[in-house]
Order: sequence, then C-alpha cells, then structure tokens
Amino acid sequence: MLDHWPRTFEDFAVGDRVATGSLTVTEEEIDAFCRSFDPQPHHLDLDIADASLLGGVAASGWHTAALTMRLIVDGKILGGSPIIGVGVQNLRWPKPLRAGDRLRAEAEVVKVTPSRSGAPRGTLLLNIKTYDQNDEIVIEMDTTVVLPTRDQ
Amino acid sequence: MLDHWPRTFEDFAVGDRVATGSLTVTEEEIDAFCRSFDPQPHHLDLDIADASLLGGVAASGWHTAALTMRLIVDGKILGGSPIIGVGVQNLRWPKPLRAGDRLRAEAEVVKVTPSRSGAPRGTLLLNIKTYDQNDEIVIEMDTTVVLPTRDQ
Repeated sequence: MLDHWPRTFEDFAVGDRVATGSLTVTEEEIDAFCRSFDPQPHHLDLDIADASLLGGVAASGWHTAALTMRLIVDGKILGGSPIIGVGVQNLRWPKPLRAGDRLRAEAEVVKVTPSRSGAPRGTLLLNIKTYDQNDEIVIEMDTTVVLPTRDQ
Repeated sequence: MLDHWPRTFEDFAVGDRVATGSLTVTEEEIDAFCRSFDPQPHHLDLDIADASLLGGVAASGWHTAALTMRLIVDGKILGGSPIIGVGVQNLRWPKPLRAGDRLRAEAEVVKVTPSRSGAPRGTLLLNIKTYDQNDEIVIEMDTTVVLPTRDQ
C-alpha cells in the first residue's frame, strides 16, 4: 500500500493500491443532500424510512458516491494529478450509509491503457471501495480516469 | 412516451419510456457542490479550468449524477413508487455540465427481472440519459432499481 502515487501515467502499474483518509457523515449532511437531490420520503421521513427496504433513514446513494470523490480527492490518489473520470462500471451500494458512519476508501489499479491515438495521456481503470467504521463496503465501483504522460 | 408509469413491478415492460421535467444548474450550485465533494483546481479555479481537459469550469460529474436523480424523483418515473437503486453500469459523461445548462432526462426500461426467491418484488434495468438544452447527453447510465409487486 503506497502512501501516495506519482503523477504521470507511466508511474502506475496494475496492482498499485492507495488508501485515503477518513471522514464522518452527519445527519444534517444526509438530510441536506437528500433535500437537494433525492427528496424521497424513505430518505426524509423517519416512519416511512423505518418501513422501507432501507430499514431506517439512509443517505442517498449519490451522496455516498460524492463523499467517495471527496475522499479520493483529499487523498490525492493520483499523487496530485487531477482526477478526471470518464466513466464508471459495476457501481453498487451493498449497505446503506447512515448518520455517524465514518468512511474511508481504497483504490487499486486494475488496468492501464495508453492512448490509442498516441496522445500524451492514458487511462487507468481503478477499483474503488469505500468502507464504513465496521470495514463493511458502502459503495464499490470501477472508474476509468484519464491522466497525462510524462512527456505532455 | 408515457406521461407517468404505474407503481408496481407488473406494470412495466421492456421499451416503456418516460421523460422528466427540466431544471437549470447555476454557477453557485456548481461551485458549492465542488467545494463540498470535488474540491479540485480544475473545477474551482477559472484559469486552471480553462487549461484543463474540461476546457473551462465544469460541474463535478457526481453533481451531474445527483441532478439526474433529482429529475427522475421529481418526474416520478416509477409512478410514485420509491426509486431505490441497487447498482449502476455503463455510466459515462460524454460532455461537461456548465453553469446555465438546462437539463432533462429520459428513462427507458431495458429489462424486467422478477425476484428469483419469489419475494414480492422485482428489478427493472433502466437506461437513463440526461440531455442539456442542445439535446446533447451530459450523463448516461444503466441503473437497476427494485420495486414491489402488486401483491406485496
């Protein structure tokens, strides 16, 4: 597990891993995000939430995704290079995110792909898992990011 | 194109489509989201943004995803049934989202899958596309949602 990664495409290899710091999500943040982006009764109303498939008030899944982005940006998982995603596969939410949960993420390089056109960049396929304080996964995805080569 | 859909699993068929209303994203909203979840210079600093792959200040891709959720919740694309996603495939951002862009979404049923265990629910695979005011796609994804059967 590396502390941080270097910044250009050539410096990455399949199997490289990096861990982020952590953050704690509050009830107020969950509520504010849902009111802005996912205003459904099963997120906002306690009685309805308890009776729903989620079994209680839980964050919007897109909040969990956004918090994962915050973790990997703060964690400088590309060693300070901009993190620009072009696509996501296999996104799943195995467990609801609840107020008070403390999150951390891990990223692993799954594939490295040079530019087909010879442009001074390449893409990395990263598997990203975000864990709660019980080391259970709240979101997992495979993200393709683009970054420059050394010669750019 | 249906105005709205009925609410239980049995009422959906492959090929059903629904369109949402629209919303406009502001510079302040883009800035606030990036500060909370994606605080990278290419989102927040105009000079750096102009020089980046994005060619100017653009929203976080997770903001585009969250706004799509807002559109499909307000659009009641499951006819008022809760919209609970369990996973996403093939998420891509073909074009950056900019301040002032007006968004609308369309959803189409790609697959209907009854519960394997016989539980009173099923899943729908929905292709969701979000368009800007030029009818260009800013985000597209295939989302699996779970919803109850009539007998639940």
